[in-house]
Amino acid sequence: MLEWLFGRRRKTDAPLLGSREDAGDSAGRIDLSDLAPDVVSFLGQTAYLELAVFESLSRAVSQSPNLRVKEGISIVAGEALAKHQGLIAELRAKKVDPAVAMQPFTEAIDRFEMLTRGRDWYETLLGVYITAGFLDDFFARLVGGLPRGVAARVRDVLTAPGSDEVILDALREGMASDPDLSSRLALWGRRLIGDTQLVARSAIAASDSAEGIHRRIEPVFTDLLGAHTRRMDALGLTA
Amino acid sequence: MLEWLFGRRRKTDAPLLGSREDAGDSAGRIDLSDLAPDVVSFLGQTAYLELAVFESLSRAVSQSPNLRVKEGISIVAGEALAKHQGLIAELRAKKVDPAVAMQPFTEAIDRFEMLTRGRDWYETLLGVYITAGFLDDFFARLVGGLPRGVAARVRDVLTAPGSDEVILDALREGMASDPDLSSRLALWGRRLIGDTQLVARSAIAASDSAEGIHRRIEPVFTDLLGAHTRRMDALGLTA
Repeated sequence: MLEWLFGRRRKTDAPLLGSREDAGDSAGRIDLSDLAPDVVSFLGQTAYLELAVFESLSRAVSQSPNLRVKEGISIVAGEALAKHQGLIAELRAKKVDPAVAMQPFTEAIDRFEMLTRGRDWYETLLGVYITAGFLDDFFARLVGGLPRGVAARVRDVLTAPGSDEVILDALREGMASDPDLSSRLALWGRRLIGDTQLVARSAIAASDSAEGIHRRIEPVFTDLLGAHTRRMDALGLTA
Repeated sequence: MLEWLFGRRRKTDAPLLGSREDAGDSAGRIDLSDLAPDVVSFLGQTAYLELAVFESLSRAVSQSPNLRVKEGISIVAGEALAKHQGLIAELRAKKVDPAVAMQPFTEAIDRFEMLTRGRDWYETLLGVYITAGFLDDFFARLVGGLPRGVAARVRDVLTAPGSDEVILDALREGMASDPDLSSRLALWGRRLIGDTQLVARSAIAASDSAEGIHRRIEPVFTDLLGAHTRRMDALGLTA
């Protein structure tokens, strides 16, 4: 499954971070609005996803090798929690019980979170950085299918600028002091992105034939993999 | 050590929560300003304490028995993180590296956190509720010894109203479904408060004789134990 995706990844290899904003502003951006699930499903799924990201980062806070890094990762954890709370606020505004809205998605996202947890602190950090980056991008592409006011606020929540540099610095330091870590993380990044695409794919509303959806989603994944490649590049890793 | 404290606890048994604000506004409030440590020590210690509270609550989020509670506890975790970040902001405003300011206090607070972790999710929750409540109150009493502008802001951070009701509800539900839990938590609350007072005591600047400090701090602890008793009362537990 991955070959057809990775075969074309080099077409977007600008050495830029901040890909989420770039993707949002790009005129040639592929719109997936009509594939968005209903608004409650969308909010429940993304809210639970951000909660899972927060939990992963909280574990990383507790396992941090030193106090400076612990303090930094706690900021990133707080940003994920703020995203979660922003999405929950939209559910509450609709008088929807957040727990009820999130429940249908817990099993798949918990399984995903287990798969992407990794074997140590560095793999956890790369896991969060890569998967949350990809999925925030992906859901931001679907936002256009939500009611107008909600759409703008949710896009702002999902694409809020974060403190990813803290994670990048921690990973770079780890790789500098352990020469084996780089190749391990490069492999890990490749494994992660496959599972992440499956999660993204499962979020799509089944309004079209499987083949039709596949055909439409392929170029979007190609775009998002460009952003993924830039994230890996920022670490000196080959995607 | 505990007898002399608990012997007089019943003098303040108003069935009120929100004791922090009450204590702050009370005309008869005992001022410990001159016992406050220097501002960097104060900020480093309280910042690390709130980070430890955040970490405990984050673990409780991950171990929550259901999604509604998980969502609720994540709000309380976010409040602790916000306190931490508010205190860190004061350190940064002084061009002090937060990690350097917190470092001297990590060992004692980590040990305290281990002691107060408890054997299960309910004991962890009670542990956070009781110890963070007491210590926020305590440090708020020392704030007057800090430089003027900082003092007001730090008092606001420490006494910010929180979502303790979420914790209370979770504990009440647990006790309702397990008759043994109440007596276990009552014992646990008594153990916690001893360790908590030792932590508070160790934060005091050693500007006086041990005996002099003891004489001055005793009535303050009595006050704070009144608030502690109200916290336990809110759970139907005897302090």
